[in-house]
Amino acid sequence: MKAEKLLFAGADEYQATFAKAARDVAGIEFVAHEPGLDLTDIRYLLMWRPVPGLAKAMPNLKAIFCFGAGVERLLGSAEVPAQIPIVRMVEPGLTGGMVEYVLWQVLRHHRRIWELEEAQAAGKWAPHWYPAAWDRPVGILGFGELGQAAGEKLIEFGFPVRGWSRSKKSHAAIQCFAGPAELPAFLDGLEILICLLPLTPETKGILNVDLLGRLKPGASLINVGRGGHLIEPDLLAALASGQLIAASLDVFSQEPLPADHPFWRHPRIFMTPHNASDTDPAGGLGAIARQIARHQAGEEFEHVADRARGY
Amino acid sequence: MKAEKLLFAGADEYQATFAKAARDVAGIEFVAHEPGLDLTDIRYLLMWRPVPGLAKAMPNLKAIFCFGAGVERLLGSAEVPAQIPIVRMVEPGLTGGMVEYVLWQVLRHHRRIWELEEAQAAGKWAPHWYPAAWDRPVGILGFGELGQAAGEKLIEFGFPVRGWSRSKKSHAAIQCFAGPAELPAFLDGLEILICLLPLTPETKGILNVDLLGRLKPGASLINVGRGGHLIEPDLLAALASGQLIAASLDVFSQEPLPADHPFWRHPRIFMTPHNASDTDPAGGLGAIARQIARHQAGEEFEHVADRARGY
Repeated sequence: MKAEKLLFAGADEYQATFAKAARDVAGIEFVAHEPGLDLTDIRYLLMWRPVPGLAKAMPNLKAIFCFGAGVERLLGSAEVPAQIPIVRMVEPGLTGGMVEYVLWQVLRHHRRIWELEEAQAAGKWAPHWYPAAWDRPVGILGFGELGQAAGEKLIEFGFPVRGWSRSKKSHAAIQCFAGPAELPAFLDGLEILICLLPLTPETKGILNVDLLGRLKPGASLINVGRGGHLIEPDLLAALASGQLIAASLDVFSQEPLPADHPFWRHPRIFMTPHNASDTDPAGGLGAIARQIARHQAGEEFEHVADRARGY
Repeated sequence: MKAEKLLFAGADEYQATFAKAARDVAGIEFVAHEPGLDLTDIRYLLMWRPVPGLAKAMPNLKAIFCFGAGVERLLGSAEVPAQIPIVRMVEPGLTGGMVEYVLWQVLRHHRRIWELEEAQAAGKWAPHWYPAAWDRPVGILGFGELGQAAGEKLIEFGFPVRGWSRSKKSHAAIQCFAGPAELPAFLDGLEILICLLPLTPETKGILNVDLLGRLKPGASLINVGRGGHLIEPDLLAALASGQLIAASLDVFSQEPLPADHPFWRHPRIFMTPHNASDTDPAGGLGAIARQIARHQAGEEFEHVADRARGY
């Protein structure tokens, strides 16, 4: 089978590593976006930030592959023609990296790292008690590909896990909740809350004073969804009151986070720069190659974003 | 069956929680050590720090249960009669806690937390690259109950794992090495080394300049064995030279660590106060009750320390 051209655009900082990885991926001819490129025979586009005018200038475009799991930038863009499928990234490196990050942060909160760090800084030998994992309820807002993978790993460590999603899921070992009506029951008594939601009009600002107030007092928040999920002043207020004891944040309302933002120096906020998990170049291109092969065999793409749901 | 008396001694700070947990454990009558206690009808002793004169004053003593997994304090003590079996603690809470701690620390090193913390402190938005778990070889010195449990969890995260022990083990997914002759091959290219060894004359000082120098330059060390495994100045030298990039230490040559020890303020050493994992009172007493029941049924105790091997 002839290799299909895949146009890479809108993420210049990753272009070199993806171009290199593409050499080992069968079925794909990697094409970098540059001025004057003939777009007529390119049917597949890999994009992260929408590139003005690009998609509409591709007369034979069949699909846009998103560079990551969250597609709100592409779905919300007037640059993306409404009839073109947008395929979300699902690949083992991205999933594995997110599971790593979530477990790492859950263990930080479970072990109350702030007490250990404060004792070390003070030169104080202070063994502390922490509960068994099975006495620490953890909730996952957003129970899709990434949320389920993280939940299953948390179960293996012994944490009682609940999942919440838009539409009801079922899982042998994880208590599933769905929709606004079941949100209070999902939140009740949670000690660690993880946000892995897609950003949609329904989920924007969901991490607010009301939601945080329903967690067990002294709970922790881990946000790896989008900055738009969190009402940032509400987090600061919840930390100040003690309703929350600490937070781990990978995403922010404005990225890069402005230099004068109070999160940078907050002693109970651990920040990472939207770096919790990245798409593995080889894994991501492999996933795209499989979708292109499906399409050429007359099958539907998998993981296509639903414009009505918003993810 | 009549409940057997279990004398609790040598760990006063845990006595109350164990006494409380013992109420729910069938087969055990919890007895706290106090002056003037009649020892003649007590056959089982739960001890951590040897209590002078105690074991030898118990005419019908059948076994000493150790409060933790490491028995070197009891084995090395003239207070413990040579013919009395010393039973190491093996219970799910202790194992689960150690797996939690090891994974937490491996993820810290895997994600190079020092770069993230330095960037946050400087208010600098600096996404960084990290390898996939499968490109990060991890080695476990000490491949017994705890080492194998930790290794299996690391495998699930995708890390390539090697185990080293005194006598050769075999494992479907973990490359096993044994004895001094295979130590260099075990160490070669490791990026994260975990010490979970028992402390014996053979393993004392094993984490020294020679061993650390065989790891991949820029490797990390996690010591959850005993402080006596590590030559502390050799660690400081390896960190200073860059041969090691960071370390996580739960155990120290002197505990509590003296206030003027350089580890407290070292920017690349994360310390916990011999607190990586504690025996769960209910789980530990349950494990002891099962061993007492075995003994009364005429079976051998499990997990008996071997005085010749030293663990």
